Amino acid sequence: MHHFNVPTRDPGEYLAELNSRRFEKLKRQIAYLWGNEDYFRPRFIAAGVTSPDDIRSFDDFRALPPFMDKASHRASQEESLARYGHPFGLHLTAPLKDVIHLAATSGTTGQPTWYAFTRKDQAITNEILARLFAVAGVRPGDTTFHAFGLSLWLAGITFMQALEAYGARPVAVGAEGGISKILRYIEMTRPRALFATPSLVAQLIERAPDEIGKPVGALGIEILFCSGEPGVGLPAFRDRVTEAYGARIFDVTGGAWHNGTISCGTGWHGMHHLAEDYCFRYDLVDPVTRAPIELKDGAVGEALHTALDYEAAPAFRNATGDILRLHVGECPSCGQFGSRIEIIGRADDMLNVKGVKVYPSALQDIVTGFLPHVSGQLRIRLDGPPPRVNPPLKVVVEAAETMPADEWDGLARAIEQRSRDILALRPAVTVVPFGTLPRSNQKTKLVEIVPAQS
Amino acid sequence: MHHFNVPTRDPGEYLAELNSRRFEKLKRQIAYLWGNEDYFRPRFIAAGVTSPDDIRSFDDFRALPPFMDKASHRASQEESLARYGHPFGLHLTAPLKDVIHLAATSGTTGQPTWYAFTRKDQAITNEILARLFAVAGVRPGDTTFHAFGLSLWLAGITFMQALEAYGARPVAVGAEGGISKILRYIEMTRPRALFATPSLVAQLIERAPDEIGKPVGALGIEILFCSGEPGVGLPAFRDRVTEAYGARIFDVTGGAWHNGTISCGTGWHGMHHLAEDYCFRYDLVDPVTRAPIELKDGAVGEALHTALDYEAAPAFRNATGDILRLHVGECPSCGQFGSRIEIIGRADDMLNVKGVKVYPSALQDIVTGFLPHVSGQLRIRLDGPPPRVNPPLKVVVEAAETMPADEWDGLARAIEQRSRDILALRPAVTVVPFGTLPRSNQKTKLVEIVPAQS
Repeated sequence: MHHFNVPTRDPGEYLAELNSRRFEKLKRQIAYLWGNEDYFRPRFIAAGVTSPDDIRSFDDFRALPPFMDKASHRASQEESLARYGHPFGLHLTAPLKDVIHLAATSGTTGQPTWYAFTRKDQAITNEILARLFAVAGVRPGDTTFHAFGLSLWLAGITFMQALEAYGARPVAVGAEGGISKILRYIEMTRPRALFATPSLVAQLIERAPDEIGKPVGALGIEILFCSGEPGVGLPAFRDRVTEAYGARIFDVTGGAWHNGTISCGTGWHGMHHLAEDYCFRYDLVDPVTRAPIELKDGAVGEALHTALDYEAAPAFRNATGDILRLHVGECPSCGQFGSRIEIIGRADDMLNVKGVKVYPSALQDIVTGFLPHVSGQLRIRLDGPPPRVNPPLKVVVEAAETMPADEWDGLARAIEQRSRDILALRPAVTVVPFGTLPRSNQKTKLVEIVPAQS
Repeated sequence: MHHFNVPTRDPGEYLAELNSRRFEKLKRQIAYLWGNEDYFRPRFIAAGVTSPDDIRSFDDFRALPPFMDKASHRASQEESLARYGHPFGLHLTAPLKDVIHLAATSGTTGQPTWYAFTRKDQAITNEILARLFAVAGVRPGDTTFHAFGLSLWLAGITFMQALEAYGARPVAVGAEGGISKILRYIEMTRPRALFATPSLVAQLIERAPDEIGKPVGALGIEILFCSGEPGVGLPAFRDRVTEAYGARIFDVTGGAWHNGTISCGTGWHGMHHLAEDYCFRYDLVDPVTRAPIELKDGAVGEALHTALDYEAAPAFRNATGDILRLHVGECPSCGQFGSRIEIIGRADDMLNVKGVKVYPSALQDIVTGFLPHVSGQLRIRLDGPPPRVNPPLKVVVEAAETMPADEWDGLARAIEQRSRDILALRPAVTVVPFGTLPRSNQKTKLVEIVPAQS
């Protein structure tokens, strides 16, 4: 599935071999970044590195602190705009004239995060995305339908161009085309694969009968290639969508700094990492101390992202804020041997219950495991601001509409026990009637702070 | 300026040499299209051609009837959808699997017209667009700002990719990003060149002070690269925009079947044709009889479009409906020798005033030549349906707000005389007060049918 073709099937040997090959690339990349006096070299020096040769091993590399996070990324962009008249950052390591492709995420502050690509960066991106297309079953020669947002998004023209490079003829209407045009053009062009966010995929199910007089299942789409939002990881969503379309569904991340991961479409056991030869995306550290965490099957930590070959404005020990669980071995779904990653939370969401670290999304996963007995809605109620929580952790779970009230107590105990088994934490679960917890079109806040009455 | 590097400066010799080189390419292209049994071969046969070898000369080629127009193009698309499950037309001459890029114009009927590209078609498109970028003064290494509609339009991702191939780093927010985001991102990325429709270029002038607290003239844009709508040909528009931005402005057509034309940015003397080695865009015929019109400086007729090397679904004797005037010689603005084309109307707009053919837009050009004495608004009033008109042709012209009423009569006579000199037609001009003629946000209908009172 990727080009570091490591023959072993032993997880420990596999990672050791990957790490050794990664380090060969890292030596070259570190020497390259050392040439950047505006951003990278000062950070090496601040970390006690006086020359690229000081970093003698993969462990030396992993002992370095994070070099960038969202805030320092944006500060770097503002400073390069002020100093050099471009917003691509002081950490731009290629000559500006060699940057030919741009993408950006607009973020919540209105200040975009820019991704710059040289031709080589773009060619490798195309190669990595091609691996994802192949795993999803997209074939060169297929007609594909691109309905991600086109305007600067990584899943936009960056993905669309990778489809062209792969030879899979994208009909690039984009999310901007709107639901009605998307449905009419799907009907007209008969794509094998649809590229869209989970929420757009769901909207098409609702709107198809009115817009084109037939259900999405009549459109002949065989592959749903999703990105940009969570959703595909939720069994209820996955079941509803695969049934409505009669298609397999894949969850994908990719485009940014040679990352490329995909779920395997036959269940949900994390995202297969298909770009290990170009991208080290699960360099796990303790989210508080930033100390490296031993990489092995089951390891959990905040992921630093380092691109191994990136030229333009690379991720190097970039603190993603994502808390990942690493899996190494055979995938329980598809049997493929390799590494998979599972995002279980955001570093800034972490709760610390007397030393036990728990992420709200991990509790959510446990609760949704009790569908259809629960509605899926839940809240974690804290007495004071996170991350420190005095036990027990209070969790309010909404019963399903059809769940008799006399079974709520047993349900609460079962959820507590499942949490104990999986998270090593026994919360205090209260089950409340269906409809009690407010819904929102926005991403629901799982955690509420309700100061204890004195 | 283009790759048929014909050394002569004699217009007749120049065209003769171009035509001879075109015919060399056409022989190959005709043999290629002959292989298409669904669309092209039946049309050759209907025209009396029993083998590609029957077409022995450029004149033989020009004597063929049109092979396609908008209606037959769409019918061809509908038929291929029914027969083969793709909407790219029975005239798709390349294997579908080799089509990797798509664009479409959505048209007024909701039925799009598709443009299909093989990799070779795309590479030649990029080469032709690069010539336009170079003429406009865009340089590899520049930051450019792409604000054309991205969703399938030819000026969308097709242009954006040509900018990347050229190395001119497009910030592809697209028209879909909206005026506010476009202005903020221009401010942040400081492009040398802005790619947008004339109406978007004008909107940015209005909105910049409110959105970013400064006029567009403070943004440092040096080049306005316009397409998709008329506008740049109007002196009043051109003057207003170049002054507001402090930039040069270029009118461009390109992207479709290897067409590529651009105005020279120093006045307005038609569009330089920069793709003569790939595209025969001024194959002029009588719009009624479809008989070929001799190609020479000043020739006017309906343009057939033939792409000389196109693989996917080529234009071949495609009746564009555009009435062109061909100029061959030195450009009065920039001095460049070559061919230029000027769209003076649409075939279906043509009026026939006792044998004199006149296009409403040609009359409009004459009237706008009287700015600032006129408002620019005018109507052509017919007694009955076009194209036949009994003389005199009645034209109502609105005076400028500042124009004293006692000068209206002299103005009317001057417009009549100018029309006589340029169009060989003396209309009956009536000048009416400023504000008399209704304005519309839509394209104004120049021709009104007002049956004579009996």
